[in-house]
Amino acid sequence: MGQPYDTVSFLSDFGTADEFVGVVHSVIRERARHATVIDLTHHIPRHDIRAGSLALARAIQYVASGVVLAIVDPGVGTDRRAVAVEVAGGEGVVLGPDNGLLGPAVALAGGAERAAVLTNTDFHLPGPGATFAGRDVFAPVAAHLCNGVDLAELGEAIDPARLLPGVVPLPREDGDGIAAEVLWVDHFGNVQLNVGPEDLAGWGDRVQLRWRDDVRSATVANTYGAIGGGIGLVTDSYGLLAVALDRRSAADELSLGAGDGVHLVRLDDDAPRSGPTGASTPVAFPTTR
Amino acid sequence: MGQPYDTVSFLSDFGTADEFVGVVHSVIRERARHATVIDLTHHIPRHDIRAGSLALARAIQYVASGVVLAIVDPGVGTDRRAVAVEVAGGEGVVLGPDNGLLGPAVALAGGAERAAVLTNTDFHLPGPGATFAGRDVFAPVAAHLCNGVDLAELGEAIDPARLLPGVVPLPREDGDGIAAEVLWVDHFGNVQLNVGPEDLAGWGDRVQLRWRDDVRSATVANTYGAIGGGIGLVTDSYGLLAVALDRRSAADELSLGAGDGVHLVRLDDDAPRSGPTGASTPVAFPTTR
Amino acid sequence: MGQPYDTVSFLSDFGTADEFVGVVHSVIRERARHATVIDLTHHIPRHDIRAGSLALARAIQYVASGVVLAIVDPGVGTDRRAVAVEVAGGEGVVLGPDNGLLGPAVALAGGAERAAVLTNTDFHLPGPGATFAGRDVFAPVAAHLCNGVDLAELGEAIDPARLLPGVVPLPREDGDGIAAEVLWVDHFGNVQLNVGPEDLAGWGDRVQLRWRDDVRSATVANTYGAIGGGIGLVTDSYGLLAVALDRRSAADELSLGAGDGVHLVRLDDDAPRSGPTGASTPVAFPTTR
Repeated sequence: MGQPYDTVSFLSDFGTADEFVGVVHSVIRERARHATVIDLTHHIPRHDIRAGSLALARAIQYVASGVVLAIVDPGVGTDRRAVAVEVAGGEGVVLGPDNGLLGPAVALAGGAERAAVLTNTDFHLPGPGATFAGRDVFAPVAAHLCNGVDLAELGEAIDPARLLPGVVPLPREDGDGIAAEVLWVDHFGNVQLNVGPEDLAGWGDRVQLRWRDDVRSATVANTYGAIGGGIGLVTDSYGLLAVALDRRSAADELSLGAGDGVHLVRLDDDAPRSGPTGASTPVAFPTTR
Repeated sequence: MGQPYDTVSFLSDFGTADEFVGVVHSVIRERARHATVIDLTHHIPRHDIRAGSLALARAIQYVASGVVLAIVDPGVGTDRRAVAVEVAGGEGVVLGPDNGLLGPAVALAGGAERAAVLTNTDFHLPGPGATFAGRDVFAPVAAHLCNGVDLAELGEAIDPARLLPGVVPLPREDGDGIAAEVLWVDHFGNVQLNVGPEDLAGWGDRVQLRWRDDVRSATVANTYGAIGGGIGLVTDSYGLLAVALDRRSAADELSLGAGDGVHLVRLDDDAPRSGPTGASTPVAFPTTR
Repeated sequence: MGQPYDTVSFLSDFGTADEFVGVVHSVIRERARHATVIDLTHHIPRHDIRAGSLALARAIQYVASGVVLAIVDPGVGTDRRAVAVEVAGGEGVVLGPDNGLLGPAVALAGGAERAAVLTNTDFHLPGPGATFAGRDVFAPVAAHLCNGVDLAELGEAIDPARLLPGVVPLPREDGDGIAAEVLWVDHFGNVQLNVGPEDLAGWGDRVQLRWRDDVRSATVANTYGAIGGGIGLVTDSYGLLAVALDRRSAADELSLGAGDGVHLVRLDDDAPRSGPTGASTPVAFPTTR
């Protein structure tokens, strides 16, 4: 037997209009009465593996120790593999399809130690179709993990290095600045870039932003309230820069969405140029635990 | 005293924009600290008893033993009855308005053994109005059931056979095929019909679909991934056929919604016709526990 | 040490599209394994302190004893204060920004006994930015309160009387009736006014409603079902009058929204005028516990 767990942290693209999320909770509840299921979010855009992988990466450093269940699974029922990945010295197991969804989170959790493909159907439900692995495969496996079933019992071991990595876009330095990309637009319309404040060290507090045909200047600020009436570049809660407006949606007013390119250009010609500049920093969600 | 329960599975049309769902959780929590409330969904379309009864029927076989609380209640405060229905040898009690919402789920749970009308106001809250029975009647009764109050104490016993049955449309065989109906469109746009794969036994792997002025052919497939670029008829996670597209919304692209009629016509003239055909199978969500 | 708690009731404007709510749950879970978090709602309109304060006021009398966490915080990271307010003889602690959000709920809970500003960063997480106090300040403080940390340890004590009060609009009597205001439109389109049925005592069962250019008459009714095809004034579940239609959205059909003024005019000239009339009653959500 492995280590029992008491928490399942659950993320998906299931939405909440149907009973899908509730049924996954129910299947776990019936089999692991002691476990608590925490919903991270179920509103990942349908089939959007990139968006799911980024949300999971943002959340992973905060989830309680235990099982992490992540399902954005357009290939459900095909030969994509369903996997369990042990992280953090056994403090956690990440469950989901091996389609790139889990990669960034597993990396941020310190990398995988063991992994298994969920081929042992003794731990699955006999569903009538092959379309709801969340209910028929992942939920009962999550419950069994909570009950102390070891990863090795779930199916054939695989080399964690062979799991499909996630693709997180890196910024790149070019002639007059940094070519960045929008990673995420949050509920408040803040537009997270794949650039951190350290990438702008020495640039001063004004930065030019260019996207499509727009050229605007932004103020580097620590809070939304400090932006004033213009555009801000605020260090967000994950340590990345977000294009933001105070109490209004930057995404709506500036027509920016996930995946859009944004060019950051240095404006402050009087500032010393000896500091580190350019796009040297890959996206690295800081860990705080 | 009856059997205590530790789980309340909760479905409604309350939405989540207001505090309604949270208040029901709170009322239960304050009175039955040991109980866990699982949200099945609260996004049943407003007042849509049929949609609620189908969602509850889909979920019922998976809910954890305990109390099932279902509220789609356009007649709240009128003379419609609020009832508690014991199922599965006392493993579960289904609570809700007696308006057809509970019927299919109770039938799938094996039928009712005992039922009571919730007339004993000792177990209710003294709400200022008559419009929120979820908070003032159903939630405290759910808590009392979790605490071991017996069904017989909740109000006058009624004959379970007198509960309002749900109406689930059955397919019917006609000249050249089956006249089916859309039961449900899920979050991904899959269009569930009231027909199972056994109804198409011997038809081969191509089926003609007709609805309104459209005539299209569909491929019978086991997974969304196997559909390819056309239309699929996939056995869904409840054992019924769903009109589906791979990674796109069939409901949106084909303009199909709940309640629409879809005609299935046999295409494969070379296949043997001796197998069972036609619409012999009523909607029967397979039970898997 | 203070009194430990086992429940956190959580309301915010975070929405559920992102992982914000799940991360707050996770931070609490990791630090107070025994606590249950109940979501009141997370769909308060963005930055709408008034709507949040009203929802919290409606819910407060029903929440389970313990911590109440309320976050609608457009000034996050600025010099607005984060506070903890003890209510009900220590049965509860209300956490949130001191921006008027908490005032009406604290008043309905019987007023504050002690309050503290959350300045002790020993109980916070070291977040990379200043934009997510829910995760970095309020969630860990909620967990510590559940673990028995006393309010006095959280930061400097402040006079509860100095907390920013909420602003709840009062109706006022004028020439021919009552000038009321829409407090809330619920999921079903019912339009709650800041007037109770006692304000219309002696008016009879027909009331004229005037708003913008519309003049309509409404029937005073106890249930939606009793309205018939016209407009109803129904005593809602909080003891206030709501403009309602039976099974349809009054807000949509009558174009009424939160903050709109509605004039109630007495129609029944034959009724005795000796009863209490006019707008004597401030908004007072009745307490039922």
